[in-house]
Amino acid sequence: IVKRDVVRIITPGTLIDTQLLDEKKNNYLMSIYGQADGVGISYVDISTGELFTTEIIGEGILQGLQDEITKIQPKEVIYYIEDNVYWKEFFNEICKQFDLVTNDHDHWCFEYQYASNRLKEHFNVINLDGLGLASTHNGIISTGALINYLKTTQKRFLGHINKINVYHLSETMVLDYSTRFNLELTETIRGKNKKGSLLWVLDKTSTAMGGRMLRKSLETPLLKIEKINDRLEAVGTLKDNIGLRKELREHLRSVYDLERLAAKISYGSANPRDLVALKTSLEQIPLIKELIKDEKQLLASVHNRIDTLEDIKELINKGIVEDLPIALKDGGIIKTGYHPEVDKLQLASREGKEWIAKLEEEEKLKTGIKSLKMGFNKVFGYYIEVTKSYLKQVPEDYQRKQTLANCERFITPELKEIESKILGAEDKVVVLEYQLFIEIRDIISKEISRIQSTASAIAELDMLVSLGEVAAENNYTKPNINSSHIISIKDGRHPVVEKMLDNQMFIANDIYLDNEDHQVSIITGPNMAGKSTYMRQVALIVLMAQIGSFIPVSEASIGIVDRIFTRVGASDDLSQGQSTFMVEMSEMANILNCATKNSLLILDEIGRGTSTFDGLSIAWSVIEHISKKISAKTLFSTHYHELTELEGIIKGVKNYRISVKEEGEDIIFLRKVIDGSADRSYGIQVARLAGLPAEVICRAKDILLRLEEKDIARVDSLCI
Amino acid sequence: IVKRDVVRIITPGTLIDTQLLDEKKNNYLMSIYGQADGVGISYVDISTGELFTTEIIGEGILQGLQDEITKIQPKEVIYYIEDNVYWKEFFNEICKQFDLVTNDHDHWCFEYQYASNRLKEHFNVINLDGLGLASTHNGIISTGALINYLKTTQKRFLGHINKINVYHLSETMVLDYSTRFNLELTETIRGKNKKGSLLWVLDKTSTAMGGRMLRKSLETPLLKIEKINDRLEAVGTLKDNIGLRKELREHLRSVYDLERLAAKISYGSANPRDLVALKTSLEQIPLIKELIKDEKQLLASVHNRIDTLEDIKELINKGIVEDLPIALKDGGIIKTGYHPEVDKLQLASREGKEWIAKLEEEEKLKTGIKSLKMGFNKVFGYYIEVTKSYLKQVPEDYQRKQTLANCERFITPELKEIESKILGAEDKVVVLEYQLFIEIRDIISKEISRIQSTASAIAELDMLVSLGEVAAENNYTKPNINSSHIISIKDGRHPVVEKMLDNQMFIANDIYLDNEDHQVSIITGPNMAGKSTYMRQVALIVLMAQIGSFIPVSEASIGIVDRIFTRVGASDDLSQGQSTFMVEMSEMANILNCATKNSLLILDEIGRGTSTFDGLSIAWSVIEHISKKISAKTLFSTHYHELTELEGIIKGVKNYRISVKEEGEDIIFLRKVIDGSADRSYGIQVARLAGLPAEVICRAKDILLRLEEKDIARVDSLCI
Repeated sequence: IVKRDVVRIITPGTLIDTQLLDEKKNNYLMSIYGQADGVGISYVDISTGELFTTEIIGEGILQGLQDEITKIQPKEVIYYIEDNVYWKEFFNEICKQFDLVTNDHDHWCFEYQYASNRLKEHFNVINLDGLGLASTHNGIISTGALINYLKTTQKRFLGHINKINVYHLSETMVLDYSTRFNLELTETIRGKNKKGSLLWVLDKTSTAMGGRMLRKSLETPLLKIEKINDRLEAVGTLKDNIGLRKELREHLRSVYDLERLAAKISYGSANPRDLVALKTSLEQIPLIKELIKDEKQLLASVHNRIDTLEDIKELINKGIVEDLPIALKDGGIIKTGYHPEVDKLQLASREGKEWIAKLEEEEKLKTGIKSLKMGFNKVFGYYIEVTKSYLKQVPEDYQRKQTLANCERFITPELKEIESKILGAEDKVVVLEYQLFIEIRDIISKEISRIQSTASAIAELDMLVSLGEVAAENNYTKPNINSSHIISIKDGRHPVVEKMLDNQMFIANDIYLDNEDHQVSIITGPNMAGKSTYMRQVALIVLMAQIGSFIPVSEASIGIVDRIFTRVGASDDLSQGQSTFMVEMSEMANILNCATKNSLLILDEIGRGTSTFDGLSIAWSVIEHISKKISAKTLFSTHYHELTELEGIIKGVKNYRISVKEEGEDIIFLRKVIDGSADRSYGIQVARLAGLPAEVICRAKDILLRLEEKDIARVDSLCI
Repeated sequence: IVKRDVVRIITPGTLIDTQLLDEKKNNYLMSIYGQADGVGISYVDISTGELFTTEIIGEGILQGLQDEITKIQPKEVIYYIEDNVYWKEFFNEICKQFDLVTNDHDHWCFEYQYASNRLKEHFNVINLDGLGLASTHNGIISTGALINYLKTTQKRFLGHINKINVYHLSETMVLDYSTRFNLELTETIRGKNKKGSLLWVLDKTSTAMGGRMLRKSLETPLLKIEKINDRLEAVGTLKDNIGLRKELREHLRSVYDLERLAAKISYGSANPRDLVALKTSLEQIPLIKELIKDEKQLLASVHNRIDTLEDIKELINKGIVEDLPIALKDGGIIKTGYHPEVDKLQLASREGKEWIAKLEEEEKLKTGIKSLKMGFNKVFGYYIEVTKSYLKQVPEDYQRKQTLANCERFITPELKEIESKILGAEDKVVVLEYQLFIEIRDIISKEISRIQSTASAIAELDMLVSLGEVAAENNYTKPNINSSHIISIKDGRHPVVEKMLDNQMFIANDIYLDNEDHQVSIITGPNMAGKSTYMRQVALIVLMAQIGSFIPVSEASIGIVDRIFTRVGASDDLSQGQSTFMVEMSEMANILNCATKNSLLILDEIGRGTSTFDGLSIAWSVIEHISKKISAKTLFSTHYHELTELEGIIKGVKNYRISVKEEGEDIIFLRKVIDGSADRSYGIQVARLAGLPAEVICRAKDILLRLEEKDIARVDSLCI
């Protein structure tokens, strides 16, 4: 008897017999995990081992999912959609429509912990950051479930599936956390201050909404040439036209935060003062719109999108008092002329108060009490106050109400009669005014979407004006954006560092990168010479260009990059069990797994967190991989001078160094990037500048000399 | 004619002719800079070149200054005291008293920018961080002015003054910013969270004041053995006595923030609710005091310092209502029985309300209107409300006051008479109650210092209870604190990391450091093996011991350290023009300039920010300097395996490594620190674990092999 066992389960998505397959088409198995605010999509062709993953977050989930299914045409789909997901039904319809073989898979396979453990096992890593999946929660789940399904059905080791291709569907550049952090886009690494960040330099916006839009744009640079050029065109116009820019800024400054006001109105939490703020802002809108009426392209589009909202302005203008009282609950909100009943009641109250004033005069004359005066408090209402010395002159018809230290308070029937008129009117008018205010607010709240789209147009204009202002102020130049795969910058400056220097001149530097002979720049030079500044400057200039900003260069041609990656600095995360070197390598792995030939890589001293030979080997191998397999444009700084040997051996690798001049003991930093490689790092000179004791420096030099004399093997001789 | 020029100005403090000097005594020139909240004191003996600087901040400035002058007995003093300084006069008296030759020096020499520039010039550094002056604003000014004065009078190069000895007068350990930051005392480096910090582990306090005191204690560990032992004794008692600890915690939980309450009372911003909160807290105090009445030493002292404040509690108890109304401004604050007038008015108001209720019944009967009811509003006072359907039954003596949609409101003379009694009484009682409340608050505010000292005793008790709780919960042990210069730890654990591990066991490790044969531990081992965890664990254990906490060890003897220094991690500060390596070297310089033989140094991969030879030379020289000149106890991790050669050559240097086991391609981290040195860093294995693509790993291994075969000279052969 032969013992039988299931050795493989064949499903439509896991066919590998080539006879059954159309060789010109991939045979994809797809895995989908959906929850309320996102969906993870993964698919694999197990005949080739290619595995892809993406994630769609926020709006457009269903559309995106449909697009992907259409594009990929999977043979089989495994999925799990959480119960609370609004598009669950639609998804089922899509499946029917495409006639998909589906498999509503076990829930527990789609649990985060389970899925991520399957992935760690399969790829033999201790965390997922290096696989490029770091922040794609849903993508991890869909991929993990996919791998699990394959393991269960195929019952064999799937070694050919050894890489996850993470792709993004967005129209904007994805910047991972460490890149945003290292480039100090919106806050500095030390101190978390805005001052010292790129945003600090670029933000000359006049409105809160403009500021928010600029920050968002910084974090999501554009990928389409036309959109970038639209912005650049507008920024150019605003840069050149000083008068226009100045006037726009003046008007924009008087525009309140329309987005927040709209939200308050729509939540019903706006008070009369908010409506007046809205009106004040709306008064500026036609003026702003008028100023750009003859502009073209993007500014024309902004012009068209601005709704002057005259009706809303008029409504508030007619209804709400401009100069509102401090306490809004006592009325005085609604303008005279807006509603006849309000007018009548206000008149009654006003007349009543005049009567009271008249009564005071009359009673003074009648009683001869000079100190007699009218008063009001919440407990007794209106009263007549008489100081103690005059008490004998008080007429009989005065009724005593209250006795104080120096005076007594009285009422009279006549006074109370007037009072009831005044108070009655006031009471009613407060209620009525509040009703009318709510009516006005409700009318406006039906127009919220118009206010919001105007707000967004104004925000965009404000951002463009800010970029124009910054371009003019800092002498920025318009980049030539193209799809050439070439980044060529003449006289580039670091936008932030040049602003932080007080009196010194910032030394400008060129760069030329392409996918041919100038693909990887290996940068050597002493500590402190400015390697990091130079590399980040290139990244920042490219990023600025792709948000549509002018840039700190004399001339530049920028071939669009799809992503910017940085690996800079070092910090560990002990409580998460991550050593410094582990963090460095995870980030490096993430880059190697995600970068394409259109990416820009900034790699600062890769390999320094371990022993020299290990680090050098890894750095060497990484450069080879980038050059030969990925072809990404790369700036690579290093103190491993051995790496400069790669020029001439690997195509596309070029050496650059940052020049210094030695003057006796001292080194002078020239900050100029030139061809060639540095042979010294001047670490000891820097240590001296940092204040290391003189004898330590002296001894270090001594040791260095001996090391350089290849004395390293006989270390005994070092220790006299 | 001979051209004459002043070549030197001799002043009492700048004598160098040994004939004029008493050789057994230093001849000090002192410089003092004083401003409102601090004073900088510097002094130099120009015959020897020794320069000292300190700074006194906050309280005790004048006393400290007097102590220093007494101790140092300068021959001459230059000074500048800002005009707004309250102790300026006293300072002049001190000068007279000591018969000092003084020199009220030019103001501009004592300006920060000027003084710091003089210092940078003299010491030829580009920033002052490395001189140990980083955060001593006043010290920089006094030292800079001193150097300037010497330059002006001596007119020659003062090369022998080449080091600033910064010292501290405090009774607590000074932890510099980077040490607090690197050791993650109160927040983590990544994320700035409390979770993952030492405070997170130790804070089981029940009151806000206890929490604040614990945080402060963490940041200012103690230096006196007796004080530490006092705390340890108390923590031990509380650790062992579970019942006592539990009861104390229960009572402490009901104690509000007495310090903040005291501040509010003293600022006059406390409301009645605050007084009730104070009383509630004070009710716990005698119970807490009673619980520790038989304890000894520190707990006895806490017991004695607790003032039960019965008088204050009694005062509030008598005067203020416990169950306060929501709106405090309408009265109802003062208890019945506290003041006869309040009682009388409250009675009148209560009776009035009863009358109104009675009246409602009477009027219902009289008129036959079932829906008749009494109401009150602020505008009309009390009224009788009748629904529309009953309007015909309304008696003639009802006066109409207000018409609403479904009903009308009336008043009667009788109602108004009662009303005036009620409202009069209420009005008066509100005023009176408020006066009485203010009286009570004023009485208490005279006793603020008693509340404060009780608060501080309670805070200390809470901190000790928390430390006892943590010790019991985490199985901590009492350290033996002594002045032996030996740190000996058996089975030490990292207090935070052991709590973050879910299921894994934390591997405990020993350490032995002294000022003889075990002074510098050089720690090698693979990346990820746990070097940083081990080193920080030692620092944290010592720090915990010196705040009087039990520690995560099986046994430990801790010779008091005067400071803990750390140099860990790497980050640059481009906008301040500081490169990563510059930051590293500045911190290193600061440590070398400030550390003493009683300090504990944690140095993580010094020299990795530059080229291999430079870094190795600096690391080598630093270890030599620490061993031979400073004699500080040091943990030094490195990937420069060459440094392990120092064992046996320099006295006091010992090698340790963190053991791993190789299993084919994989390495297993054993986390055990053992004697000897590692010969490999396993960087490539870690890179693989991090997810670097397989082909990159493969190639890196290949390159490493060739490098190890000393093929490094012929790099051409690497590139097939």
